[in-house]
Amino acid sequence: VAASLPLGFANVDLARQNRQGLAEIVYGPGKRPEEIAAIVRVLLDRTSGPVLVTRLEPAAAAAIGDMTGHYDPRSRVMCWRPAAPREMTVAIVTAGTADGPVADEAVAVATAIGLRVRQFRDVGVAGLHRLLAVADDICAADVVVAIAGMEGALASVVAGLVGVPVVAVPTSAGYGAALEGVTALLAMLTSCAAGVCVVNIDSGFGAAMAAHRLAFTARRLRAEAR
Amino acid sequence: VAASLPLGFANVDLARQNRQGLAEIVYGPGKRPEEIAAIVRVLLDRTSGPVLVTRLEPAAAAAIGDMTGHYDPRSRVMCWRPAAPREMTVAIVTAGTADGPVADEAVAVATAIGLRVRQFRDVGVAGLHRLLAVADDICAADVVVAIAGMEGALASVVAGLVGVPVVAVPTSAGYGAALEGVTALLAMLTSCAAGVCVVNIDSGFGAAMAAHRLAFTARRLRAEAR
Amino acid sequence: VAASLPLGFANVDLARQNRQGLAEIVYGPGKRPEEIAAIVRVLLDRTSGPVLVTRLEPAAAAAIGDMTGHYDPRSRVMCWRPAAPREMTVAIVTAGTADGPVADEAVAVATAIGLRVRQFRDVGVAGLHRLLAVADDICAADVVVAIAGMEGALASVVAGLVGVPVVAVPTSAGYGAALEGVTALLAMLTSCAAGVCVVNIDSGFGAAMAAHRLAFTARRLRAEAR
Amino acid sequence: VAASLPLGFANVDLARQNRQGLAEIVYGPGKRPEEIAAIVRVLLDRTSGPVLVTRLEPAAAAAIGDMTGHYDPRSRVMCWRPAAPREMTVAIVTAGTADGPVADEAVAVATAIGLRVRQFRDVGVAGLHRLLAVADDICAADVVVAIAGMEGALASVVAGLVGVPVVAVPTSAGYGAALEGVTALLAMLTSCAAGVCVVNIDSGFGAAMAAHRLAFTARRLRAEAR
Amino acid sequence: VAASLPLGFANVDLARQNRQGLAEIVYGPGKRPEEIAAIVRVLLDRTSGPVLVTRLEPAAAAAIGDMTGHYDPRSRVMCWRPAAPREMTVAIVTAGTADGPVADEAVAVATAIGLRVRQFRDVGVAGLHRLLAVADDICAADVVVAIAGMEGALASVVAGLVGVPVVAVPTSAGYGAALEGVTALLAMLTSCAAGVCVVNIDSGFGAAMAAHRLAFTARRLRAEAR
Amino acid sequence: VAASLPLGFANVDLARQNRQGLAEIVYGPGKRPEEIAAIVRVLLDRTSGPVLVTRLEPAAAAAIGDMTGHYDPRSRVMCWRPAAPREMTVAIVTAGTADGPVADEAVAVATAIGLRVRQFRDVGVAGLHRLLAVADDICAADVVVAIAGMEGALASVVAGLVGVPVVAVPTSAGYGAALEGVTALLAMLTSCAAGVCVVNIDSGFGAAMAAHRLAFTARRLRAEAR
Amino acid sequence: VAASLPLGFANVDLARQNRQGLAEIVYGPGKRPEEIAAIVRVLLDRTSGPVLVTRLEPAAAAAIGDMTGHYDPRSRVMCWRPAAPREMTVAIVTAGTADGPVADEAVAVATAIGLRVRQFRDVGVAGLHRLLAVADDICAADVVVAIAGMEGALASVVAGLVGVPVVAVPTSAGYGAALEGVTALLAMLTSCAAGVCVVNIDSGFGAAMAAHRLAFTARRLRAEAR
Amino acid sequence: VAASLPLGFANVDLARQNRQGLAEIVYGPGKRPEEIAAIVRVLLDRTSGPVLVTRLEPAAAAAIGDMTGHYDPRSRVMCWRPAAPREMTVAIVTAGTADGPVADEAVAVATAIGLRVRQFRDVGVAGLHRLLAVADDICAADVVVAIAGMEGALASVVAGLVGVPVVAVPTSAGYGAALEGVTALLAMLTSCAAGVCVVNIDSGFGAAMAAHRLAFTARRLRAEAR
Repeated sequence: VAASLPLGFANVDLARQNRQGLAEIVYGPGKRPEEIAAIVRVLLDRTSGPVLVTRLEPAAAAAIGDMTGHYDPRSRVMCWRPAAPREMTVAIVTAGTADGPVADEAVAVATAIGLRVRQFRDVGVAGLHRLLAVADDICAADVVVAIAGMEGALASVVAGLVGVPVVAVPTSAGYGAALEGVTALLAMLTSCAAGVCVVNIDSGFGAAMAAHRLAFTARRLRAEAR
Repeated sequence: VAASLPLGFANVDLARQNRQGLAEIVYGPGKRPEEIAAIVRVLLDRTSGPVLVTRLEPAAAAAIGDMTGHYDPRSRVMCWRPAAPREMTVAIVTAGTADGPVADEAVAVATAIGLRVRQFRDVGVAGLHRLLAVADDICAADVVVAIAGMEGALASVVAGLVGVPVVAVPTSAGYGAALEGVTALLAMLTSCAAGVCVVNIDSGFGAAMAAHRLAFTARRLRAEAR
Repeated sequence: VAASLPLGFANVDLARQNRQGLAEIVYGPGKRPEEIAAIVRVLLDRTSGPVLVTRLEPAAAAAIGDMTGHYDPRSRVMCWRPAAPREMTVAIVTAGTADGPVADEAVAVATAIGLRVRQFRDVGVAGLHRLLAVADDICAADVVVAIAGMEGALASVVAGLVGVPVVAVPTSAGYGAALEGVTALLAMLTSCAAGVCVVNIDSGFGAAMAAHRLAFTARRLRAEAR
Repeated sequence: VAASLPLGFANVDLARQNRQGLAEIVYGPGKRPEEIAAIVRVLLDRTSGPVLVTRLEPAAAAAIGDMTGHYDPRSRVMCWRPAAPREMTVAIVTAGTADGPVADEAVAVATAIGLRVRQFRDVGVAGLHRLLAVADDICAADVVVAIAGMEGALASVVAGLVGVPVVAVPTSAGYGAALEGVTALLAMLTSCAAGVCVVNIDSGFGAAMAAHRLAFTARRLRAEAR
Repeated sequence: VAASLPLGFANVDLARQNRQGLAEIVYGPGKRPEEIAAIVRVLLDRTSGPVLVTRLEPAAAAAIGDMTGHYDPRSRVMCWRPAAPREMTVAIVTAGTADGPVADEAVAVATAIGLRVRQFRDVGVAGLHRLLAVADDICAADVVVAIAGMEGALASVVAGLVGVPVVAVPTSAGYGAALEGVTALLAMLTSCAAGVCVVNIDSGFGAAMAAHRLAFTARRLRAEAR
Repeated sequence: VAASLPLGFANVDLARQNRQGLAEIVYGPGKRPEEIAAIVRVLLDRTSGPVLVTRLEPAAAAAIGDMTGHYDPRSRVMCWRPAAPREMTVAIVTAGTADGPVADEAVAVATAIGLRVRQFRDVGVAGLHRLLAVADDICAADVVVAIAGMEGALASVVAGLVGVPVVAVPTSAGYGAALEGVTALLAMLTSCAAGVCVVNIDSGFGAAMAAHRLAFTARRLRAEAR
Repeated sequence: VAASLPLGFANVDLARQNRQGLAEIVYGPGKRPEEIAAIVRVLLDRTSGPVLVTRLEPAAAAAIGDMTGHYDPRSRVMCWRPAAPREMTVAIVTAGTADGPVADEAVAVATAIGLRVRQFRDVGVAGLHRLLAVADDICAADVVVAIAGMEGALASVVAGLVGVPVVAVPTSAGYGAALEGVTALLAMLTSCAAGVCVVNIDSGFGAAMAAHRLAFTARRLRAEAR
Repeated sequence: VAASLPLGFANVDLARQNRQGLAEIVYGPGKRPEEIAAIVRVLLDRTSGPVLVTRLEPAAAAAIGDMTGHYDPRSRVMCWRPAAPREMTVAIVTAGTADGPVADEAVAVATAIGLRVRQFRDVGVAGLHRLLAVADDICAADVVVAIAGMEGALASVVAGLVGVPVVAVPTSAGYGAALEGVTALLAMLTSCAAGVCVVNIDSGFGAAMAAHRLAFTARRLRAEAR
């Protein structure tokens, strides 16, 4: 069995599912619709389980839409063969309404790959009681994705409250000194709450994949425990 | 009366007390002890009220110490003719122990110029209950100085809890992505809590002076109210 | 009484008025018109006093315009139930004509929440006599908002002339080395005039809210004085 | 039971162990030896399990050394009551010899809090066969900590090979365009391998704590599975 | 013979072919179509060998298209009198599909000036086996151009595998912390593999010209060897 | 005589001509056509000599065009009452064709305010002989304006050749690491040729005004010499 | 006559005096005392007029002190054969005492090369009346050197008051957001006062050389006028 | 034969000589003398040809000096078994005396690995004739290493004159806006002369290794030609 399939413009990694429990996920920007369609077709043929395209603009989605995948315009994620929900629960927490699209991407990817998702939106620290009101529910999740722009303080406060892994996602919400997400990124990296992990700006996808890696280990630990 | 007195290396502003209710405060770095001493002598002679030198290293303090001022090595502030405490109360809140020296400077300057000070140290958001335990006391102050390094989240959380002015002081505590205080600075400037004001990195002095300006207005409003 | 009302996409903070004397102000960008309208409706129902939306583009304003609020296209602020003018006077000073929109936002928000506003436009330091001609009038205000782009020198010069609080607002006016407002921001943070406070780039809103916090304290001091 | 104990210079968080399964870990810089000693004494008295101080210089360690903790000068970690090794295995992988001290900190903290550690040193991508030779062993761990300075490519390559969580630690090894670790930090955040999580520059401690959070969840999942 | 021909808006360097074995290559942006046409006409008249315009938008190409050059819209290169393939082989390697346009420019320029090109696309390190499968073929080239965005790790891995010169081209593919190519640029400059050379972001042209300089020396060495 | 005329949106400086030998020059961006027209009308009425508007887009120029000024779309400068050429000669030197618009602005402003201009275009250092061929002519000018983007090396080379003042203008020509002119700016500020002065990125206007200041002094020296 | 003299470690430019009216000035850092001595000896032998070394530490000065030059430890300038004062007057203006060493260098170099110097120290804008008191004297100079750290507002204010050339020198005085002089540099480059020229941070030398270039032109204009 | 030898703190790459024609070169910083000694011993035992340590401080060199290598304190390079000079000639060109140590490293490494070196020191563009005087000699080399700090213009000028490969090395010589070499780095990356390649700041080593890669190809081409 070939480990990759070269298409000229792309070289599809067919061994990834075996290595990481999930086929390659296609990043939309910089690819033409027909290129995306060709890659998806290879993945549908040569792998099992969910196939996803992220950051797919509606026009591109329309151009490849006859392939019967499901497209969600808010998250810009297109999906084929979504997984059934499994054991791991992810709490997805946002600071403000403007962080919504990043959360949408995280939710769409996490759900499609079989993670259970609970959402806590607009609980930023300017009105702290909103967060405290749901703190116990957040603590009950297996991993928390904390999404915030501007100064990104939500990540530190959440990480101080919970013991589980916290994946912080800085967003480009804000203006001026927010520096298109760089400020939240730096702030999350220097969180006074220990053990916060950070992914790239606006990368709801990255957070979902970090949760996927956690589920990979959890599954293995459980299998060993039997 | 001359509005300034040129000494060659310096040109002492004698009109500032009249304009702003406080004589010029001497910034120590870049001045030789004998220069500092000469400026202080002019201020003691030509103005009334407190005279201060900030960021004064112990060796420099010793070199000018025969002038009977009070030197506090922790805050590096030297002071002559401190003011009696007056009406305005400043809450000085720090995130961690490493922010202590900046708080010390704010406390020393604020006290010397006649503000009442209440301190709340090491109440950073990694252990949020520490802050919530004193929130009512902080709310009772007339102005809050929030001092934090690393991601500086304390400023946002405090500003969300209180209605009074919040002067945020980023500190250079932290390493790596803390960028010597730039991260906390940017974070405070983009606080999701509205109306936070920010001064320069490590500038306990700047925060105290912002509080002084508030007291200046408060005094005037009170005088008018009579 | 619930402290917040979750709408799914937003979680309206109903306790803010009690904490800070003013209901949550809605930041327009990243929200759809129907979302803004829903939030405004909650605020009009559950709180008293002024309700504001900032950074609202004309098209969005039109889409929610049947709610009988007042929309000002220059400041991009929409307002319901503006407060009557109260005791505190804010001087809003700009360096150049290009800083106008930021001043417009500060004026619109400050006026709507009940502050008295005096405006001094285009008095930048390249023609210093223009500023000196109005210096006494600026000194008479209770707080000064100094708005400038490019090198932002206005803030330092104004703060050297007055004793009251100075809230400096850097603007993105300028090009090249102005770095979209970062230069003015850094310059204002390092002002040689002590006690200058700085808010985010182009944040007329932030300056008005800082003034609101001052009025909050002034009101309390006055109440205590009785 | 009090949730925190204020010491004036510090406010010890006594509730953290309950929230996060581990007492507060003391960050050495900016604290005087007697302050560190006092905090440690409180933690030893009021909590159970491991007590650690990080970034402790040898001189400071000597000054507090009569408290019978174990000090390791290479990692600069001092430890009391280390935990027995438990279920979770952490692979700690470094790119070069210069990344050693950061790995030492990660190893010392992880071991002290009860994680099993396997080390793979100096397997940077300039000689890729060194990494490939141990790839299977790395894949067998439950979480991988990838530590690299310069361009930080190790994190991407490792994350491409394994399915488990990857915590990337940029180090300040390198010069010039390495920008004291900022280059590796940015590179790791933009890894082409999905789901890489990043902690602060040189923060072996942060990586160990991220692993601790993973173990926290794994333990809970296992408890639930019974 | 004049060494340059001033056209008012441009001053065509006629001596370059003699100095460097290749006529001046015209950079399209900032020039109007008629200006480009005029410069090309001079070069066709006064020099021999290939004449190229880079970064030429299709509309501009159309406007000057009656000059019978060959225009390739993917690489945005227009070419007259391409050279026959000569001795030197360039391997052009890309990390992902989004790096394609930069590779297209490198291929178009290199081919036009007489270099032999072999392409290896989408062999980024997230699926390392794809690169290892073609490693021997890459080693067989005389120079390798490694093109990658995001974290740019491809350059380090390739340079560790081959002994020949490696010209690394960072691309602006990626988002957030990729900083429009700056991250890949810095990463390539700090490669742990020794002797990597770097050109400007997205400069497929620069890489081809670096290869041209190598061919210039190789040709001379061969000539001397005879 | 009033020193300034407040128009509400602007506060025209009427004293500038007296102080600096030239009326205020109007910066177009951020002003509406009717505002520009009003300011120009005041300047035409209350001052003598040239009146200029810079960075004026064609549409705005059309909107105010019935005021009989001269508009040059290449430089985006509109001018009334240009001065007759006077004693001082400015050499305006550019590195490449893409620097043309900045040179156009410098030429338009300098000419309008009465300086003599000599132009040397596209003499960048990649073909050094082009510059050397005109070096003597450049040396004959009274001041040199060196305009370059990319790495800005032209400024250093020119300043090494001439004894007269060199005003360096970095331009935003280039891409990637050119950082929209910041690279050329930094390079010019650190020129190895002593005494180079630098103005803002793309500021042909700033260079012309620096030359105007030189002419101001030269005129005064000449007057004194008589 | 040779245009340069290679010494191995240096290649002395013997033609510079002819081109620019002044021999090469030696930059001290990075050269050993014996290397500096050798270069100075060549310059004393092969050129006429002043010979200078800048940024020379006292220890290095002592090591080469037997060459009978004059060393000034405050400016760190060593000088042989200073020129007699000539026609051009330079006003050197500083914002604060901490800018003193930069002013010292400017004064030392300017004086040594024959410019007349007038000094105005510590007239920063925080006490504007100090500057206004000497404004007429500054206006009388032929060129103004404005030296300031922190926010560098002095340059804008001075340039608004005078018509002559203004050379702005940012200094590294200040801390935090002053970014070691970068803030003042950016601020000066974006001055709202037109025609300000900027040299490198802390470069009193650069300012003096810019003034030298002005004198070069003034002298030539005067010669032509005869 | 093992491809690498793990020593615990290091993992010596024994296959590199085979891949790249040269054994691993040891980077000194961050390694203890006994670690360096152990690595060197392995390389001397298991490989043939030159063995080098770079950036080795004199004290560390002394500590390992009984191993009979040759240590050069100026370049900080220690060498065993230097290669005999071979076919390829490298011209090493510096802008100023302060660039000397970087050139020393390039010379030491290049010589030790068998390249022929010709040096051209202190020929920066402020005195262009110095460079023009040796231009023909530089053109005769097979590759040029252009070393410059400050604005780094030397690289562009040299690359405009020669047809052979140019490896540009930015140095940290300079102050203020030179940003410790970042300015020269950016400038070299955006050189208007096509095909310039850049290595890390101060990396004389990197330049020598880039030349080594060129020689690797040249040797192979020659072998094939036979």
